[in-house]
Amino acid sequence: MTATPNASEQSPLALMCGGGSLPLAVADHVSARGRRVILFPLVGAAEPESFGQHKQHWLYMGQVGKFLKLARAEGCRDLVFIGSLTRPSVWKVRPDFHVLSALPRVYAAFRGGDNHLLTSIGGWMEEHGFRLLGAHEVAPEILMPEGQLGRVAVNEAARADIALGLDYLHTAGRFDIGQAVVVADKHIIAVEAAEGTDAMLARIAELRRNGRIHAASGKGVLIKAAKPNQDHRFDLPSIGPRTVECVAAAGLAGMAVTAGQAIVAEPEQLVLAADRAGIFVAGVKP
Amino acid sequence: MTATPNASEQSPLALMCGGGSLPLAVADHVSARGRRVILFPLVGAAEPESFGQHKQHWLYMGQVGKFLKLARAEGCRDLVFIGSLTRPSVWKVRPDFHVLSALPRVYAAFRGGDNHLLTSIGGWMEEHGFRLLGAHEVAPEILMPEGQLGRVAVNEAARADIALGLDYLHTAGRFDIGQAVVVADKHIIAVEAAEGTDAMLARIAELRRNGRIHAASGKGVLIKAAKPNQDHRFDLPSIGPRTVECVAAAGLAGMAVTAGQAIVAEPEQLVLAADRAGIFVAGVKP
Repeated sequence: MTATPNASEQSPLALMCGGGSLPLAVADHVSARGRRVILFPLVGAAEPESFGQHKQHWLYMGQVGKFLKLARAEGCRDLVFIGSLTRPSVWKVRPDFHVLSALPRVYAAFRGGDNHLLTSIGGWMEEHGFRLLGAHEVAPEILMPEGQLGRVAVNEAARADIALGLDYLHTAGRFDIGQAVVVADKHIIAVEAAEGTDAMLARIAELRRNGRIHAASGKGVLIKAAKPNQDHRFDLPSIGPRTVECVAAAGLAGMAVTAGQAIVAEPEQLVLAADRAGIFVAGVKP
Repeated sequence: MTATPNASEQSPLALMCGGGSLPLAVADHVSARGRRVILFPLVGAAEPESFGQHKQHWLYMGQVGKFLKLARAEGCRDLVFIGSLTRPSVWKVRPDFHVLSALPRVYAAFRGGDNHLLTSIGGWMEEHGFRLLGAHEVAPEILMPEGQLGRVAVNEAARADIALGLDYLHTAGRFDIGQAVVVADKHIIAVEAAEGTDAMLARIAELRRNGRIHAASGKGVLIKAAKPNQDHRFDLPSIGPRTVECVAAAGLAGMAVTAGQAIVAEPEQLVLAADRAGIFVAGVKP
């Protein structure tokens, strides 16, 4: 857990916003701490109705020159990326001249996978004089705490599954693949790569139906962890109420997430959903 | 590649048969080498019309006592397991007294994952005086050779993807998960666990449709390898014409399989399918 940076706290914070509820949550937390935020929601990713009271400039993916001009005019020096970019609509790119002039570099950034892509874009912004921060650095309230969320505790069988899952994620981390696995009866039954956590969990229900998983319903754990070499400013794993629903639909006992290295979206809704479904949500040591 | 064992070659070979075309291929190869085979097809897994000319005793999963009695009466001393057990119908078990008397042991065997399960059953058969062999030991014709099958060659981009896939499979091998990954543009986009290779490949097509994979169609490789600590007598990875179809439907450039450590079902059909689809099939050093 990093302390809130002080260097340029007097400047308004530029918040580049993707989809989901996290951008507004971060904007509200930062505002509550007394710092102004300027939102730059991305068309096709961010929800138009989400950001009512905050100042906002909407951008298409690729409008880097426009962003640099607006953010400088607002006096921003710090920049945070937050929210999901998983919808196809966000990839209707409108590259402006600034991007076109750097095309070989943009192309190189794309070739190395998501983690590499974000690191490259981040480095690029820093060359333009912005300081790139993680959302958890400006709003540590969004981080997963250690211990139990909600009223269901981790059971003994799940403990062994969690240890195995973390062992795997640490071992496979250098390959820049997914950040999540499902383990049941000390056996890894699903590994996340490009499909994302929700799609991986949907497959578990399917595997139970067609008899390829023998573990009883109510057994098994989703384990999520940050990648070892991941730049935590861009790409911490995150959970939310929807993750709880997917875990319940997959017939698992619960989920374990690395404390201090994962983001919780809509924590109140998440706890309500977990208690209702009878599943545990545990923050574990990375 | 193991030499064909000689110790009890005069005895007929007991072949426990699951689904797919491999059981008949192995039976034919062994017969062609002048050794008698007695088939024990499993109800719900093996196809009833598959084994015309060979002597056969059909069994339900769990009829261990019946198998031991019949195989001994036939004079068998060597036993091979071959074919898939993935259909739910095969798990309609009919445990006979022999299995029931060993239930705690059967239960323990089931808890550790597929690899552990088969190793346990194998050890059990050996205690009853049978020698357990791999299908590739009695019919080395079924092994994947090194080099190219069909007329499409591996391209330069695919070579880097194959190296990365093999590196991952060796690294993750100790976790007894899947034996396959899909790599595109030097990025792992899918990892196989309990779902099996065909289901993993079906997901690639879906990921392309919903925009979560940016690699162009015609790029990317399926890589399959035997697990490092795997008992090769039970669980070598296998490919066949159906794998080729799934690779083509996923929009990949081809597949690489560890030579001498993977089984090829219906090689003629596989080559026809690969040439028709324009994809490469390569046997690579493990």
